[in-house]
Amino acid sequence: MAGKSARGAPRRLTAEDLARQQREISVSEFFSKNRHLLGFDNPKRALLTTVKEAVDNSLDACEEAGVLPEIHVEITPVDGREDRFRVKVEDNGPGIVRRQVGRIFGKLLYGSKFHRLKMSRGQQGMGISAAGMYGQLTTGQPITIISKTRAQGKADYFELVLDTKANEPRIIKQDLVDWNGHPGTSVQIELEGYYQRDKWSPDEYLQQTATANPHVSLTYKDPEGNLIRIQRATDALPRDPKEIKPHPHGIELGMLIQMLRETKARNVRAFLRRDFSRVSERNADEICQRAGIAENASPRRIASEEAENLLEAIRETKLRNPPLDCISPIGQEQILAGLKKNFQADLYECVTRSPTVYRGIPFLVEAGVAYGGALAQDRPAKVLRFANRVPLLYQSGACVITQSVASLNWRQYGLEQPAGSLPIAPLVILVHVASAWVPFTSESKEAIASYPAIEREVTLALQECARRLRIHLSRKRRHAEAERKRLYIEQYIPHIGEALQNILRFSDGERSKLQAELTSILEKSRGG
Amino acid sequence: MAGKSARGAPRRLTAEDLARQQREISVSEFFSKNRHLLGFDNPKRALLTTVKEAVDNSLDACEEAGVLPEIHVEITPVDGREDRFRVKVEDNGPGIVRRQVGRIFGKLLYGSKFHRLKMSRGQQGMGISAAGMYGQLTTGQPITIISKTRAQGKADYFELVLDTKANEPRIIKQDLVDWNGHPGTSVQIELEGYYQRDKWSPDEYLQQTATANPHVSLTYKDPEGNLIRIQRATDALPRDPKEIKPHPHGIELGMLIQMLRETKARNVRAFLRRDFSRVSERNADEICQRAGIAENASPRRIASEEAENLLEAIRETKLRNPPLDCISPIGQEQILAGLKKNFQADLYECVTRSPTVYRGIPFLVEAGVAYGGALAQDRPAKVLRFANRVPLLYQSGACVITQSVASLNWRQYGLEQPAGSLPIAPLVILVHVASAWVPFTSESKEAIASYPAIEREVTLALQECARRLRIHLSRKRRHAEAERKRLYIEQYIPHIGEALQNILRFSDGERSKLQAELTSILEKSRGG
Repeated sequence: MAGKSARGAPRRLTAEDLARQQREISVSEFFSKNRHLLGFDNPKRALLTTVKEAVDNSLDACEEAGVLPEIHVEITPVDGREDRFRVKVEDNGPGIVRRQVGRIFGKLLYGSKFHRLKMSRGQQGMGISAAGMYGQLTTGQPITIISKTRAQGKADYFELVLDTKANEPRIIKQDLVDWNGHPGTSVQIELEGYYQRDKWSPDEYLQQTATANPHVSLTYKDPEGNLIRIQRATDALPRDPKEIKPHPHGIELGMLIQMLRETKARNVRAFLRRDFSRVSERNADEICQRAGIAENASPRRIASEEAENLLEAIRETKLRNPPLDCISPIGQEQILAGLKKNFQADLYECVTRSPTVYRGIPFLVEAGVAYGGALAQDRPAKVLRFANRVPLLYQSGACVITQSVASLNWRQYGLEQPAGSLPIAPLVILVHVASAWVPFTSESKEAIASYPAIEREVTLALQECARRLRIHLSRKRRHAEAERKRLYIEQYIPHIGEALQNILRFSDGERSKLQAELTSILEKSRGG
Repeated sequence: MAGKSARGAPRRLTAEDLARQQREISVSEFFSKNRHLLGFDNPKRALLTTVKEAVDNSLDACEEAGVLPEIHVEITPVDGREDRFRVKVEDNGPGIVRRQVGRIFGKLLYGSKFHRLKMSRGQQGMGISAAGMYGQLTTGQPITIISKTRAQGKADYFELVLDTKANEPRIIKQDLVDWNGHPGTSVQIELEGYYQRDKWSPDEYLQQTATANPHVSLTYKDPEGNLIRIQRATDALPRDPKEIKPHPHGIELGMLIQMLRETKARNVRAFLRRDFSRVSERNADEICQRAGIAENASPRRIASEEAENLLEAIRETKLRNPPLDCISPIGQEQILAGLKKNFQADLYECVTRSPTVYRGIPFLVEAGVAYGGALAQDRPAKVLRFANRVPLLYQSGACVITQSVASLNWRQYGLEQPAGSLPIAPLVILVHVASAWVPFTSESKEAIASYPAIEREVTLALQECARRLRIHLSRKRRHAEAERKRLYIEQYIPHIGEALQNILRFSDGERSKLQAELTSILEKSRGG
């Protein structure tokens, strides 16, 4: 069987030949070859992603430091070219300490947000260094950083590149410069890009960012030199989302085994109470009892089989939902205000769901709709997607939000909908998923993965909005139906008139009169 | 300005506080938290991905060794449970040398296929170790490997786990065992999974794999114990795709600068000829002349500005397209045979495009369509996607293939199509993208990124198929239109009859006669 020889070119690599080709791959080599994974497929998207990564970092830093964000974004064509831009993003955040600048901007998988459960825009430690790496790949230019951590004195100035083979920063130039009278960070990246003012543009991203972040002030100088100012609508920072421990519901066996091995707790009861959220003393005792494990057993001594019992006991024990304060929603008031500001419609509705968990991680879903008015008819609904207050512009089809919208049976609520597609209606749907950890479908963070728990919450939020739309819609629909019938009648009456004239040999006058009578009777009988 | 204080909870993290939170993230930590990126979002998809990664590796290994693949796949419920399975995949390939087994199955970003340009199914050095890591996370069980590199003697037996913090294999058990009388590899992974026989099932994946790989023999024992055998349809292995150098068109500045720094060539002319494909001696001279660089200049001495000139010169120089033999298409005959075997339709068409390049990497597109017959009406077209002969089942919306299908104006070819969606028609569309490096939208390799060059080729292939469909379709459409009119008439004639009876005081007999006459006249006049 195995000896069966194949027709085709002779080609006999042995296991030894194949072994010699095996090599380790550095993470920056991987992402430089697969840079579309990070949102750098093409010049247009690269420009957006660069702005996005820098602005998201600025907003996170400002909020963590408790500062109302003032962001300045500038996109300048290089040498008047249409395919090369210099992107500058400046903030009034806390700045970055000197020893960290290199790795934050010149090393992939390095950051403060990965090893914690806390709602934030960044979470991977990749975005901004990836933008720098893309700039370097396409233009050969280094990334420039100015950072200042105190109001007084000079600022740090850096120029650096990323050594792709080693995934390490190489600092080309380091200096002290005069800059601003307050702390902050400025980053400049030169890159191959393409600018077009459409629904995937930096303009759209900044506009939607302002909608979901009313506490942000923005100035934006676009590539054509126009200066756009967006003033903050409120002086209140969003509630500070708290860092939390994983919720025990949703934990998995392998994860539990690893946590048992690595915990600093001396006994299982303490392990359950300290390394997870929402486990009370009584819960911990109940779990141990169910699992048949002594409360004071050492976590490191729990065998694989016992761990399975422990997991089952955890799953069977009723626990409180994760704390509300670990997530900060946009809020109904703000969502409705955003929809009203941007879309002229007949009806606005909004729903904020209670937080729940997927894989032990808390999240919540908010949804809003705008219907009718000046919105386009006969087009698929417009879906605005947000994750942790960040607008998602690309990869709509891959996102649990779009998929949930398409899976919902909108016909049940009186809308037209081709099977498995978005509803066809003058409709805008806004969905915000906020979570201590958002599962994105790729490192570019443009689409949320379809975890069943998230899909369910999005669907429930949409259903609630749809229910409220239904009355409004059915009224509209009855009117349209009547209109359609009237048109049929208008279309056929003249033909019938002619036919009758032929059969019954009517005069033209008699024909007209008959047509008028027919029209009136039919309209009445058909409910026109 | 920067001092503006914010309402809200007090929260004053300084740059120093933030710096203390900065940490390095290991690649396996990253992917264990983001495991949906690798195709392990949920138990159902995880089961498919595990089978897929193992089978794809087996097929690659067999073909590289010139062996006709015989693959055995077995999915067994563990302890009769519905949420836990043991996946076993065995092949008759060349086996794996002992010293490599650990890293191949227990380390992410380790493999033979990343650092080369050659069409193959795997390309990242992640898939199978990620499947093992998922199994370990969800069940705590190690991955089991049996490997034999010679027909005689004993086989190597390994049980291993992946140390997530370090991204290194930990071998738990190593032994020699009796196994088969020929070389090969067997891998077993126990994982949390969910089995459902639908269009995202291992069954569908294996079926489509057989369609695109007629040289493969498969046996498959499904979770219910059914044994499915698929015999190979041909003894000819596909043409061995050649490993190639990058094509100079599509290279970028940063890449060029890096290649200049790392080349072993002593002068620029040799660099151009040896490190790229399709650069003749004459081409190399022409490029140097255009760039104003001496042919014998040392590559390491080329300044950044000169590199820009060099790049421009490369782009302006006409070069031959990449060699055909670096890509191995499925072929028209096989695509048509596959469509005919699986779908009963009225019309089958197929197109294979010539190879072209994106970012210096060659690729080609094949497309086939089946229309009418027993295919479902009033449903969006079914799109079958393949990349390097591998069926893509998930993330359809994120894929350049689906997007190209939806972007094409099918109405122009006589099909119904909601704006921006798939055409609504009894239509199956098959598209295969074959490339020395496929740009996937995520590490799970289920969707191809929308590089403009790839999108263009897919669109051209689809247009060609659509043109051939058009005649067939317009005939169908005329018939349907006539039918629709006839139905209107049937719907309204009785109402008109009644109305006339009232107006003209006809008897029931006169009304029936009039209705019959009206029907006949209207059908004639409306072309019924």
